Amino acid sequence: MVRRDDEADGEGEAGTVVTPSAEFPPLAERDLAALRRIGEQWYEAPSPRPDGELPVDPTLGRYPGRTVPGRFGRLAPIAMFQVGDPGELVAAESATAPRSRLGRGLIRVRRVVLGPPLRSSAVVSERMRKLVALPVLSSDLLSSVAYGPEAMLAVLVLAGSGALGLSLPLAAVLAVLMVVVGVSYRQTVVAYPHGAGSYVVATDNLGVRPGLAAAAGLMVDYVLTVAVSVSAGVHAVTSAMPGLSGYAVPFGVLTIALLLAGNLRGVRAAGNLFVWPTYAFVFALLALLLVGYVRAGARGFAPVDPPPVAVAEGLGLVLVLRAFASGAVSMTGIEAVSNAVPAFRRPEWRNARTTLGWMISMLVVLFVGLTLLIHLNGLVPEGEATLLSQLARVTFPTGPWYGLVQAATALILLLAANTAFAGFPRLLFFMARAGHAPRRFLHMGDRLAFSDGLIALALAAGLVFVTFGGHTQSLIPLYAVGVFLAFTLSQAGMVVHWRRRRGPGWRRRAAVNALGATLSGLVLVTAALTKFHEGAWVVVVAVPLLVLLALGIHRHYRLVDESLSLHPSPNGGRPPMALAPLPGAVEPGAPAEAQELPQQVRHLVVVPVARLNRAELRALAYAVSLGQPTLAVHIAPEDAEADRFREQWTAWGDHVRLEAIVSPYRAVIGPLAHYLEALHTSRPDVLLTVVVPEVVVRGRRYRPLHSRTEQRLRRALRPLPGVVVTNLPVHLDD
Amino acid sequence: MVRRDDEADGEGEAGTVVTPSAEFPPLAERDLAALRRIGEQWYEAPSPRPDGELPVDPTLGRYPGRTVPGRFGRLAPIAMFQVGDPGELVAAESATAPRSRLGRGLIRVRRVVLGPPLRSSAVVSERMRKLVALPVLSSDLLSSVAYGPEAMLAVLVLAGSGALGLSLPLAAVLAVLMVVVGVSYRQTVVAYPHGAGSYVVATDNLGVRPGLAAAAGLMVDYVLTVAVSVSAGVHAVTSAMPGLSGYAVPFGVLTIALLLAGNLRGVRAAGNLFVWPTYAFVFALLALLLVGYVRAGARGFAPVDPPPVAVAEGLGLVLVLRAFASGAVSMTGIEAVSNAVPAFRRPEWRNARTTLGWMISMLVVLFVGLTLLIHLNGLVPEGEATLLSQLARVTFPTGPWYGLVQAATALILLLAANTAFAGFPRLLFFMARAGHAPRRFLHMGDRLAFSDGLIALALAAGLVFVTFGGHTQSLIPLYAVGVFLAFTLSQAGMVVHWRRRRGPGWRRRAAVNALGATLSGLVLVTAALTKFHEGAWVVVVAVPLLVLLALGIHRHYRLVDESLSLHPSPNGGRPPMALAPLPGAVEPGAPAEAQELPQQVRHLVVVPVARLNRAELRALAYAVSLGQPTLAVHIAPEDAEADRFREQWTAWGDHVRLEAIVSPYRAVIGPLAHYLEALHTSRPDVLLTVVVPEVVVRGRRYRPLHSRTEQRLRRALRPLPGVVVTNLPVHLDD
Repeated sequence: MVRRDDEADGEGEAGTVVTPSAEFPPLAERDLAALRRIGEQWYEAPSPRPDGELPVDPTLGRYPGRTVPGRFGRLAPIAMFQVGDPGELVAAESATAPRSRLGRGLIRVRRVVLGPPLRSSAVVSERMRKLVALPVLSSDLLSSVAYGPEAMLAVLVLAGSGALGLSLPLAAVLAVLMVVVGVSYRQTVVAYPHGAGSYVVATDNLGVRPGLAAAAGLMVDYVLTVAVSVSAGVHAVTSAMPGLSGYAVPFGVLTIALLLAGNLRGVRAAGNLFVWPTYAFVFALLALLLVGYVRAGARGFAPVDPPPVAVAEGLGLVLVLRAFASGAVSMTGIEAVSNAVPAFRRPEWRNARTTLGWMISMLVVLFVGLTLLIHLNGLVPEGEATLLSQLARVTFPTGPWYGLVQAATALILLLAANTAFAGFPRLLFFMARAGHAPRRFLHMGDRLAFSDGLIALALAAGLVFVTFGGHTQSLIPLYAVGVFLAFTLSQAGMVVHWRRRRGPGWRRRAAVNALGATLSGLVLVTAALTKFHEGAWVVVVAVPLLVLLALGIHRHYRLVDESLSLHPSPNGGRPPMALAPLPGAVEPGAPAEAQELPQQVRHLVVVPVARLNRAELRALAYAVSLGQPTLAVHIAPEDAEADRFREQWTAWGDHVRLEAIVSPYRAVIGPLAHYLEALHTSRPDVLLTVVVPEVVVRGRRYRPLHSRTEQRLRRALRPLPGVVVTNLPVHLDD
Repeated sequence: MVRRDDEADGEGEAGTVVTPSAEFPPLAERDLAALRRIGEQWYEAPSPRPDGELPVDPTLGRYPGRTVPGRFGRLAPIAMFQVGDPGELVAAESATAPRSRLGRGLIRVRRVVLGPPLRSSAVVSERMRKLVALPVLSSDLLSSVAYGPEAMLAVLVLAGSGALGLSLPLAAVLAVLMVVVGVSYRQTVVAYPHGAGSYVVATDNLGVRPGLAAAAGLMVDYVLTVAVSVSAGVHAVTSAMPGLSGYAVPFGVLTIALLLAGNLRGVRAAGNLFVWPTYAFVFALLALLLVGYVRAGARGFAPVDPPPVAVAEGLGLVLVLRAFASGAVSMTGIEAVSNAVPAFRRPEWRNARTTLGWMISMLVVLFVGLTLLIHLNGLVPEGEATLLSQLARVTFPTGPWYGLVQAATALILLLAANTAFAGFPRLLFFMARAGHAPRRFLHMGDRLAFSDGLIALALAAGLVFVTFGGHTQSLIPLYAVGVFLAFTLSQAGMVVHWRRRRGPGWRRRAAVNALGATLSGLVLVTAALTKFHEGAWVVVVAVPLLVLLALGIHRHYRLVDESLSLHPSPNGGRPPMALAPLPGAVEPGAPAEAQELPQQVRHLVVVPVARLNRAELRALAYAVSLGQPTLAVHIAPEDAEADRFREQWTAWGDHVRLEAIVSPYRAVIGPLAHYLEALHTSRPDVLLTVVVPEVVVRGRRYRPLHSRTEQRLRRALRPLPGVVVTNLPVHLDD
């Protein structure tokens, strides 16, 4: 079992493990060292006042077991937190419940749909047995035999029915390709036991850009898979029940929503939903092949002559290549297993490799078997019925078998989308961990599924589906480009991998992968060229754009991380995106770690006061109680009002220095923000804390009756460094 | 000059003066007394630390005159604030400029459209001369003579052409009604020299509910006025240029937007825009009357017999009443002057009264003159051309005069909406000051117009206009109900007013108002009954709903004000909507003023820490520098992560007590909020201040890359009393 080297990405030993802790990457050694140096300086921090001991037991350990309903739930806090390890609290499920009645109702609905939340430690038990993994991961791959042979023959038949005989050598070549790619991926699974998608393999061995290109190709392909297979499934249903054809779009959207819901329930639940249709389809096709070959054997395997077809194009190399590329569509979905290794039970890599072997075998048997049987029966692609339908009709002239084959086909097409739901969020997880995708895709939902990735896929596919009005069949031509881009890069990466490792038998392994890469690359070029005008150009355009987007995201995260990192910038100077210094860090050239020390902070607490009522007095009391210098500011629309306010202030006792600003144009936020900026400019070493009371009233319907000054002020002050806004909620209980 | 009594609304001496300071009502005497008592107790507040003197000169007086561009504008702060009276800064116009480039561009556009901002002290010079006030305030009233006589005759003609002769006595009755209502309003203007709308008069003398009913009637009427007159004006234009008829709706919306912009420019600017069309209309109609009567005199004032018309209905009392109510439509808009008294130059009441006298005289002359001339010429309402158009055609058979009359009519109909723009925001101002409308309607925009009220009217009218697709003619029947409701209540209120005052000649004045109230009430009942099915039911439904809404708003504001008021609740006990006590005010029964004292506040500063980077360290430094007890909280998805974080914490030096909470369902906000609530419940006398760093990145496009934890946390903590959220922006400058 070979493990990949840890790259300089700071992923540490986590490697390709999928864990909820990925959101909290550990500190590098140099960060820890910086942290220790910073900690030394903190000993000079001002000690809290004599009464500075914590006034509360933070462990809640002494909290009596009263069952008073809290504001956030109906359970007493003691039921929400258990004391775990020393100094560690464990939140119970109820501690995540929302506060509002509507929110609690939604939670109940969500629980019915998605099931109860799963603990992080359940991540192991959420893994899949092989017999479950097979249908979950293979429905995309296997379903494509329903249209793969037909796609190939539909090109060949352009050169007349005589050219159909070429389907047998092409099928043989494709079978070789499948086996080569399959063996190649089996090697990848072993080499990358924690998930071995093309993105990881290509990034590891070829570099960031090829890795992102592979990822972009896969992302496009996953989205297309969902849109196309839902469209095909819906089409199958509406063909059977024409009355529903007006509802194709809502029906498809509903299907995508159901797929999303099923996957949000978690990996295991999704597997359970999709076990039977896949096995039913495989069983139906195997029965079809068995009966078909028995019948063919009864007539001595003599092929039936196909009906004559008008010749539309000459039989040339381009046509043969197009046919080959079209047949290769059957291989989309092979990536799923290698990407999903960690979802298998232990030992993950062995179970995944076995499953992959089964899948490839089944694919080859079904693809070659169907192509040969179609040839033996002399069937020709036509507009009305699919070849699979014709074959089933010929093979099962009577009885319910024909209907069963058709139903299983429709069902698996509909569910093939599920494979994409398994692969897409994992791909985004790996990308996000390397900083190439938004970090939110690192977060595991409460069913341990990557909720954000699932939702992103459902939204993108739903958008494509609705945009094309449910007629996504025109997207099939641009289907294979993305996936063969990923195949090629992944296997080229594996060649580099073996060359670097030089383990026992590396030449043989490298040769297998090199063959796979060459064949995949050939299919890629063929598909991109021959189908360019039919839509492949979309992928040719989208992939570089996605790569650029990912690089931009990565650049932004890198700048932010460098700015926030504890150790000084590696190039010694100011990082490209500098953290604005904390006021008080007077020397701008001081090392980063000297800029976040409490003893350097000088405070001025500013309280904007509009009128003297209990809310404003409470804000003043809060400000004064902090024991820092305090200043009150009043914005008046007229001189007379300012004078009147000053009188009230004097009546109160003038306990806080008051500054009245006359705003003759009656604006409030602008002058206040500018005043604070002027204060900040005049003494940049003073940190301004603006205390704003906010009257909180229950009931949204009262919101328009209260000015949102507090929010507008916060937005106006946001761009000012050195201005902290403190929001003091003043609650009115009725 | 009689002034109304000050009611218990706490408006003090402000009476009905319109001033920008209305947003800051002065404190009542008992509030001041409470303030003094509270101030006494503040002397026990903890004095700030030895370095507690203000570190900044708050007057900015010593601020050097550098012209460094600030973040909020390109002008140095010294140019933004001038030092006014001792201890008072005056914000210059530039201090209200927004910070973003887009914002500054919008400000420039706005200035071109609306003009530069006006200082509060300009409120006097923004007032109107009588010759300007007349067109601004009378366009609604005078324009209605364009359709008033026709509306009356269109009902009479249902009983055949013989019944048309009844128009003369009806016109006489209406003239009496106009004079009575006019004289009545002249008295009102004198009695309420600071604005004497029906709302104020009815509230003052009849009570809150009748006042609100009058206000609701007027509000409905103002909105209808705008929608209907814009629709009529657009119709006149599209009749002349049929090619534009497809653009009626956008054209009307544009007209409403132009009216809004003109009015946002301020009262005086609006007057300037609308002077000439009104005078042109009056001049055109007077010329029409002059020439018409000269021609009629030439034939000895012998009436021409009208053409025979089929009788559709018998001539009964109901029909006559309907005709009377229809003719009374001409009186809508009379309210405008009395509502707008403060917009006149000094002496406001005398100028307003004179203007009102002119308006009524003109109305009577035009209405009676037109009705009589129509009778003399034997004109009959027909579908094709309006009566006014027929009359102009008969009177000016040749020459450009006919076209001029038509153009002036179209223009004044279009501009009649402007009267509503003058009245509606003032009405809302008075309602808001009494707490019957949202307080935002108290705010004067930077052109001294009530921007929010203008915008509300434009939105409501635009909505009605668009909803009816520009065909708002069907709204005319429900037009008069609201305004006559207001007339009736206003004049009934005046009767009570005179009875209470019993000044010299009060019986005569009361009699005039009683007559006005009776006649108006008669018209109201007639209009509501005879036009109920044609649409008046909408008003009958809307008025009570608006009254209920206003009462609800008032109730809410009253509860909030009572809760926030400094003096104890008048009924001695807990106010109906109590201010949740500040933590530290241990005795719940303590008087209100004892609950907002700084010496009672006990602090615990809580810092949620996700990972140790400079942003989080800065938050910790800020928290510790406040010198209060501090606690750090870490939410971990797994035990292992919590342990790892604790190790980092120890490496740093464990300067702050750390509490790790394992959230096995991976939620962050919920457990944190519940933990804080549990802390708060265990020690309700401790005020929790949660310090949350927020990484601020320039450029909205980076927002999706950063989790909005800070905002979500604030929203989750909002319902918790005793939890203060401090937002520490950490700026990344590139």
